[in-house]
Amino acid sequence: MMAGRMTRALIEQVKPMSREFSLECPVPIDRYPRVLLAHGGGGRLMHQLLEEMILPAFAAPGAEEGHDGAVLELAGGRVAFTTDSFVVRPLFFPGGDIGRLAINGTVNDLAVCGARPLFLSAGLILEEGLAMETLWRVVRSMAAAAREAGVDLVTGDTKVVERGKGDGVFVNTAGLGLVPDGVRIGPARVRPGDAVLLSGDLGRHAVAILSVREGLEFESEITSDTAPLHGLVQAMLETGADVHCLRDLTRGGLASALNEIARSAGAGIELEEAAIPVGDEVRGACELLGLDPLHAANEGRLAAFVPWEAREKVLAAMRAHPMGRGAALVGRVVEEGPREVRVRSPIGGVRVLDVLSGEQLPRIC
Amino acid sequence: MMAGRMTRALIEQVKPMSREFSLECPVPIDRYPRVLLAHGGGGRLMHQLLEEMILPAFAAPGAEEGHDGAVLELAGGRVAFTTDSFVVRPLFFPGGDIGRLAINGTVNDLAVCGARPLFLSAGLILEEGLAMETLWRVVRSMAAAAREAGVDLVTGDTKVVERGKGDGVFVNTAGLGLVPDGVRIGPARVRPGDAVLLSGDLGRHAVAILSVREGLEFESEITSDTAPLHGLVQAMLETGADVHCLRDLTRGGLASALNEIARSAGAGIELEEAAIPVGDEVRGACELLGLDPLHAANEGRLAAFVPWEAREKVLAAMRAHPMGRGAALVGRVVEEGPREVRVRSPIGGVRVLDVLSGEQLPRIC
Repeated sequence: MMAGRMTRALIEQVKPMSREFSLECPVPIDRYPRVLLAHGGGGRLMHQLLEEMILPAFAAPGAEEGHDGAVLELAGGRVAFTTDSFVVRPLFFPGGDIGRLAINGTVNDLAVCGARPLFLSAGLILEEGLAMETLWRVVRSMAAAAREAGVDLVTGDTKVVERGKGDGVFVNTAGLGLVPDGVRIGPARVRPGDAVLLSGDLGRHAVAILSVREGLEFESEITSDTAPLHGLVQAMLETGADVHCLRDLTRGGLASALNEIARSAGAGIELEEAAIPVGDEVRGACELLGLDPLHAANEGRLAAFVPWEAREKVLAAMRAHPMGRGAALVGRVVEEGPREVRVRSPIGGVRVLDVLSGEQLPRIC
Repeated sequence: MMAGRMTRALIEQVKPMSREFSLECPVPIDRYPRVLLAHGGGGRLMHQLLEEMILPAFAAPGAEEGHDGAVLELAGGRVAFTTDSFVVRPLFFPGGDIGRLAINGTVNDLAVCGARPLFLSAGLILEEGLAMETLWRVVRSMAAAAREAGVDLVTGDTKVVERGKGDGVFVNTAGLGLVPDGVRIGPARVRPGDAVLLSGDLGRHAVAILSVREGLEFESEITSDTAPLHGLVQAMLETGADVHCLRDLTRGGLASALNEIARSAGAGIELEEAAIPVGDEVRGACELLGLDPLHAANEGRLAAFVPWEAREKVLAAMRAHPMGRGAALVGRVVEEGPREVRVRSPIGGVRVLDVLSGEQLPRIC
């Protein structure tokens, strides 16, 4: 497990992580079919919920039961620290759910800092009346996604708000990871001439969510791309290439991410539209739904900025990794001109790819 | 600043923290008097909100603008990691507000792990229609509380949910701190014979909240006790006493905290009711409101378990600190009997102090 290798030792009361957990909801559903306000009240019902459902799924080395935080032994060095809240609607969608999104989203924010993700926290805000079975599905999904990503959920918190003051469940995750020596990744390192690489096809997450909301069916189901990307990043770094910047493409999609980077880096970015991978089905669905795949949210895709001469080597490493099979060289950082993103169409026209004012879809993550 | 002393150096793009910030809301309120769904959408309005309001109040060394997380240089050792969500209603109350609570609550969770709090994250879940001025008051309050506690808000996230799917603003904070060498604090270290110390009078936070909700007025205003406790903890540790366990008394109050510890430690706890400090006004308000001060929530009080022979030394250090002026010896850990908390009344009767099933007050923090 990656986490094990990066930590020197775990201290305090060490408790083996429950790697296996029941498929059946451990809270007696006949007695508590729905979340009550009292489940967030600090009393017996809250302790029961934590002890019977949440801690057995999450508890990991370092998470001393009944303590106010986890105490973790970390080797000194650069620690990446990030947080994200998840309010996606619906809670469950093709290819994922809010729990999986909350784990992968924070793992990916750490990964694009160049960090190896180690430890996550989980904060749940539940709405009174939420079906206990639904909560259990979310918790189970978080535990499974954490296990798959090799991170430990070590500390958490649960609150309950009155019916009509929340929306089922909101999840916050914060994450810690260690940045290996020599890795320096960030928008300030982007340079004119850098190659812009994409790790795979765009738009799957947005289309998966919208297809459920709109009740649309496509010939074959389009599933969210939600996935942890730290293994892909590690494979890219192992090429020895000096990776300048990484960014996962979530809210606002490729357009938003590249515009932010162009501005931070003080450079322009030129993309070749024909090189940007978008699946035929997603393209068709986007046309139907009035979405632009370049603005559509993804949950398992990243853009990378690497020196031009390293592009083939990094691309080969990406394509050899399960999370980067569809990787492509899509553009280049340029010196001249304003700090904007320009897209060259297959017939040679150039348009500016701006960020939208709001967004195509609220509550996409 | 404590954070500076505990970190070796801060890397990446270093940006001085905005210690001074305007009292005026920096988002043009005439154009955007209320939060829109688009403010959470990843587009231009979200960037404007972040750049004009949130980042200037929070930005700190290590928080590279436009990056997905903060990269922080930490000396190796034991890192405490914790998270808490805040859903308190109303958002503003005598003595505090949700922003101050969110900073102090996480600072205190770190403090009672024995850690020196260093870095915090902030995750905001906003309801569409929230007055921009209200958001600004919360953000400003978080920045001020972080400054007072000597911690840096280094990374954050903002989401917006539709009107009626949230309740103004929910705040999640996660925190990182370093546990000094030699400090080992946790319920597993509690021993029969340990003295139980309280840092001050109970019940202020619960009464402050309830007085607003119920529209009650008392002779003099009872304000929340919300405060950061890490300075107090440091003063206690500096006595050289082997502090066994610390716990801040939030949801469920003293009763919940001590019952958890009795169970984790496998010991009984005996309290002297007459020794437990409760202000006269709070006691009167509790009688009026049907609250038990021993179950009432606090946001700036802790219980400490120290070896019996160290009690005077630690108590003196607590009373010499502004956050521990009202500290008192209130009880003792006993071997015999079940793992429960017993309270001896002034006339000699003994009752079991149990946890409540739910809670006296929903959304107290």
